[in-house]
Amino acid sequence: MSEKPSIPKGTRDFGPDEMVRRNFIFDTIKKYFKRYGFLPIETPAMENTKTLMGKYGEEGDRLIFKIINSGNFLSGIDRQLIREDQTNLLTFKISEKALRYDLTVPFARFVVQHQNEISFPFKRYQIQPVWRADRPQKGRYREFYQCDADMIGSNSLLNEVELISLMNDVFSELKIRTVIKINNRKILSGIAEVTGEKEKLVDITVAIDKLDKIGEENVVKELKEKGVSDAAIEKIKPLFTLSGSNENKLGAMEKFLAGSETGLKGVEELRYMINTSRLALDAYKNNSSSVEVDITLARGLNYYTGAIFEVKSAEGNFQSSICGGGRYDDLTGIFGLPNMSGVGISFGADRIYDVMNDLNLFPSFSADTTKLMFVNFGEKEAAYCMQLLREVRSNNINAELYPDNSKMAKQMKYANDKKIPFVALIGSSEMENKTITLKNMESGEQSSLSLQQLIEKLKA
Amino acid sequence: MSEKPSIPKGTRDFGPDEMVRRNFIFDTIKKYFKRYGFLPIETPAMENTKTLMGKYGEEGDRLIFKIINSGNFLSGIDRQLIREDQTNLLTFKISEKALRYDLTVPFARFVVQHQNEISFPFKRYQIQPVWRADRPQKGRYREFYQCDADMIGSNSLLNEVELISLMNDVFSELKIRTVIKINNRKILSGIAEVTGEKEKLVDITVAIDKLDKIGEENVVKELKEKGVSDAAIEKIKPLFTLSGSNENKLGAMEKFLAGSETGLKGVEELRYMINTSRLALDAYKNNSSSVEVDITLARGLNYYTGAIFEVKSAEGNFQSSICGGGRYDDLTGIFGLPNMSGVGISFGADRIYDVMNDLNLFPSFSADTTKLMFVNFGEKEAAYCMQLLREVRSNNINAELYPDNSKMAKQMKYANDKKIPFVALIGSSEMENKTITLKNMESGEQSSLSLQQLIEKLKA
Repeated sequence: MSEKPSIPKGTRDFGPDEMVRRNFIFDTIKKYFKRYGFLPIETPAMENTKTLMGKYGEEGDRLIFKIINSGNFLSGIDRQLIREDQTNLLTFKISEKALRYDLTVPFARFVVQHQNEISFPFKRYQIQPVWRADRPQKGRYREFYQCDADMIGSNSLLNEVELISLMNDVFSELKIRTVIKINNRKILSGIAEVTGEKEKLVDITVAIDKLDKIGEENVVKELKEKGVSDAAIEKIKPLFTLSGSNENKLGAMEKFLAGSETGLKGVEELRYMINTSRLALDAYKNNSSSVEVDITLARGLNYYTGAIFEVKSAEGNFQSSICGGGRYDDLTGIFGLPNMSGVGISFGADRIYDVMNDLNLFPSFSADTTKLMFVNFGEKEAAYCMQLLREVRSNNINAELYPDNSKMAKQMKYANDKKIPFVALIGSSEMENKTITLKNMESGEQSSLSLQQLIEKLKA
Repeated sequence: MSEKPSIPKGTRDFGPDEMVRRNFIFDTIKKYFKRYGFLPIETPAMENTKTLMGKYGEEGDRLIFKIINSGNFLSGIDRQLIREDQTNLLTFKISEKALRYDLTVPFARFVVQHQNEISFPFKRYQIQPVWRADRPQKGRYREFYQCDADMIGSNSLLNEVELISLMNDVFSELKIRTVIKINNRKILSGIAEVTGEKEKLVDITVAIDKLDKIGEENVVKELKEKGVSDAAIEKIKPLFTLSGSNENKLGAMEKFLAGSETGLKGVEELRYMINTSRLALDAYKNNSSSVEVDITLARGLNYYTGAIFEVKSAEGNFQSSICGGGRYDDLTGIFGLPNMSGVGISFGADRIYDVMNDLNLFPSFSADTTKLMFVNFGEKEAAYCMQLLREVRSNNINAELYPDNSKMAKQMKYANDKKIPFVALIGSSEMENKTITLKNMESGEQSSLSLQQLIEKLKA
């Protein structure tokens, strides 16, 4: 009957030490979400399969975890499907529910479903896990948390500026130096337009997006394969290596896109965002982020229509972005509510954790755990300690009594392992004198205190 | 392409108002988990199917949500299984992962898997959702949160006493008056023993557990059906209506169980718990719970071996318990780590929510949302407000600027809907005089303040 226990590939257990660090990240993000006026929502882990399917491309559809219908899920199923290995069709028949793949589509569904209860513009935040059947590898998990903030129902570019400021606040507090890369999908449209490849916009976007990972040569190869003309490719190539200040890049793009109204609008929006958010960022002394225009930033997801963001650590060598987002003009349209423009960002808590861990950026934590442990010297002493314990706790001090009358060494090892800073020793003489022998576990120092003195000391 | 959006039966969306209330419950429970020295862990939503199956009885097995294997899940499957509608066997073949059904089995798996990293006795808390394919109905959901605290690796009854004290602390702070019912599985064993029906222990336990729901007559009927002798049933019947003080009940049981060593041990344990925890509860002035011995309390789950707890609201008419738990002597044995005694409780946050909602026990919340909104009078004014916004936020005040230059009425409605207590009005004259017109949204009162005065006022 004994089984060797394990967990599914790509998932993780979190012990107390990791939890304290993870909560530090979540709490920091949440604090600034609130600071900026975002309100919390939560949606179910399971969505109807049809809500999710077709929203993330073919690849995405395959990576969605599907749940088998309860009961006899085969009843009424056309056996022809099974004989022919029609896995896709069959999946739809035997699975009505699936695990959410991100927080954006559930958010769009939420907004449409509850549109009459919502006061627009709606600023919501949502911190929940998502699931993807990706091949697990370093830094890529099958269950991970997203921390999203979106404002929907407002076209104002002030929203984009607010999000840049919010990202800077979060990463400054976490002490991660970052580069916030920004671009605008209208600029990508403009590039496709002025190179005469308007109908190849998606192919161009997808190819350019890979520049970081596969290099210029392979991007050019992919563009050719997708049928983008050699003339267009020659025109696009200089953009891969655009350098200089943000204003230099914007100036160059203004010339490049002179023939495209959409493209020029993109440059104008980007310039406004850069200038207005510079004011915001310069005002901070502890500002840890720089904002950088990156014309080759595309971001795979196709619902973006305006600004796009991507944040990377400025230190270390991390391939993955730790935050990203952008503006989408019609996310809720698929659910029947058109013309709702929104803009949002998503913090990748798990990747932020990895960066902070690798760069040693976590502060030391202890306050969160037990502050005082009473040693257990036997039944009579324990009963006495239970009363003191109550007094200590009612003064908001986290405290515990070792439950068994074990050997002293074992009890001390427990306190040590748990990083409990103070231990109270109460034997018969302490009971008689109504004193407490308090041991500082770090310094080893011992002192004899009254209950009131002990409470004052630990509250400080 | 437009779909009318909905969510799966038995699941729920939580909007901002519900989130604030739910977080109040979670935060209170978490505060006391920490106060008592429990450390947080989290486990994945998906466990290996074989970790969960067979742990919750046949009914439980059916209620576990299973996830379809990725890719062509039919490849290599014996088609005979499908032709014969062998749903159960087939499920195992096409599903290697399933959603957790509770937090106890994952905790047992965690303890065994990480036994070398854990310092015992291990006190852990865990607050995460669980999923059950139950028929949805009022108060019963397919996704709901459990908030569990367990101590494992200690036999001391002080642990039971601590848990009673913890439950009382939580419900006192939530202002729910409760009855904490307690019993001991050893007493149930004793009853089976002295009535000569030792081998019918499980049947007797399961039947007695239903007394609340189906009444004495039906319990007797079920006992008969299960083959419990008439003589035994006649002996058991008086126990259904045992009344008087806890000590009266314990005295009566002591006589009844005189022939059973196990049964008497159960009475002794229960008496110790009652007496020791009375000391604890009496020490509280705001104590809202009474502890009541209930010999017919059985709790369905079969891994309990000692104390069992169940908490119900003392007010209103709520069938369901809002907290429960007990001691299990061999939970980790199934995963290969025998002789690890533990005791734990689980708070049902969703049921607590329903009780508090029905009894109007939630305090009014506002501090958590935006405290100040700047009205947007146009581009120039908005740019000016952005600077003030930064100052206000850097003083830890949650604030926002309305993103669009909409009509005043619309902006004020937004502030009202969001329950924002203060609104800042800054037009050209305020910009000139470096003042802020601050409107109290509740009283309607307006005052002219400097930035510093505004910050002082809102920080208070």
